[in-house]
Amino acid sequence: MDGIPIFSIVAFSGTGKTTLIEKLVAEFKSRGLRIAVIKHDAHEFDIDHEGKDSWRFSNAGADTTVVVSSTKAAIMENRPIGLEALLSKITDVDIIITEGYKHGAWPKIAVRRSETGNPFPIPPDECIALVSDSPESTGKPCFRLDDAFGLANFMLGWH
Amino acid sequence: MDGIPIFSIVAFSGTGKTTLIEKLVAEFKSRGLRIAVIKHDAHEFDIDHEGKDSWRFSNAGADTTVVVSSTKAAIMENRPIGLEALLSKITDVDIIITEGYKHGAWPKIAVRRSETGNPFPIPPDECIALVSDSPESTGKPCFRLDDAFGLANFMLGWH
Repeated sequence: MDGIPIFSIVAFSGTGKTTLIEKLVAEFKSRGLRIAVIKHDAHEFDIDHEGKDSWRFSNAGADTTVVVSSTKAAIMENRPIGLEALLSKITDVDIIITEGYKHGAWPKIAVRRSETGNPFPIPPDECIALVSDSPESTGKPCFRLDDAFGLANFMLGWH
Repeated sequence: MDGIPIFSIVAFSGTGKTTLIEKLVAEFKSRGLRIAVIKHDAHEFDIDHEGKDSWRFSNAGADTTVVVSSTKAAIMENRPIGLEALLSKITDVDIIITEGYKHGAWPKIAVRRSETGNPFPIPPDECIALVSDSPESTGKPCFRLDDAFGLANFMLGWH
């Protein structure tokens, strides 16, 4: 894990954060980089499908359920997992983007969309860059909501 | 990874292999053990749900997509992953059960149900134990299809 750069994209909901991350992933992929995205979900989520074998194993009490084919794999941890343990399982990528973790220690990029009426979710001073649909005068680098190209350049140059 | 015992449960489909593994998981859990189950899927599978944020990240090209909450996590590898890399991501369990991998190197337990008309999927000589609904005279330990208790005892004693 050591050495894989991690960036957190933080925003209130309705900002277009997910779309921005999609564009960033595509931008990084077009440059030949391998990407991991971590979505921190405050709510419960159900990734598996009821009735499937993997669901049955999880439901029977398996702590970890894995499904693997020749083209992909899914590892489901049916228990709380610490951030360090989680990161240790993310390998063979060049960059990690997290959605959320606004109180985390990773470099943060805050996003806002003026029409929502919301401010940035954390003070701009705590960010390495901003993304906004309106002019910002904070002294921080600020990218347009659709400028994945510029933001990717900035992220790759940042350390 | 080193030191976590791994057992492969192998059977033709329709044998009740999934039900047997469910019972084994519950049996091991009742003994306070932590269990991982690996299902080897010869077909393509879709663990994620179309339209969800995690699905969107995978679809945008993310090599690895992770969803994490305070109670669980899912790590999806959207690319082929080698067995060794996969095993390195399975941590903090006491025993690993695999469904499939009949050509793998792990100790194998073969299951058959006589009414299907199928034999064991591999020769009994290549197994450490058998599970069957009918008498078998192979010299290998043989457990009933519903005897997760006995089979669990055998597996924990085997080395």
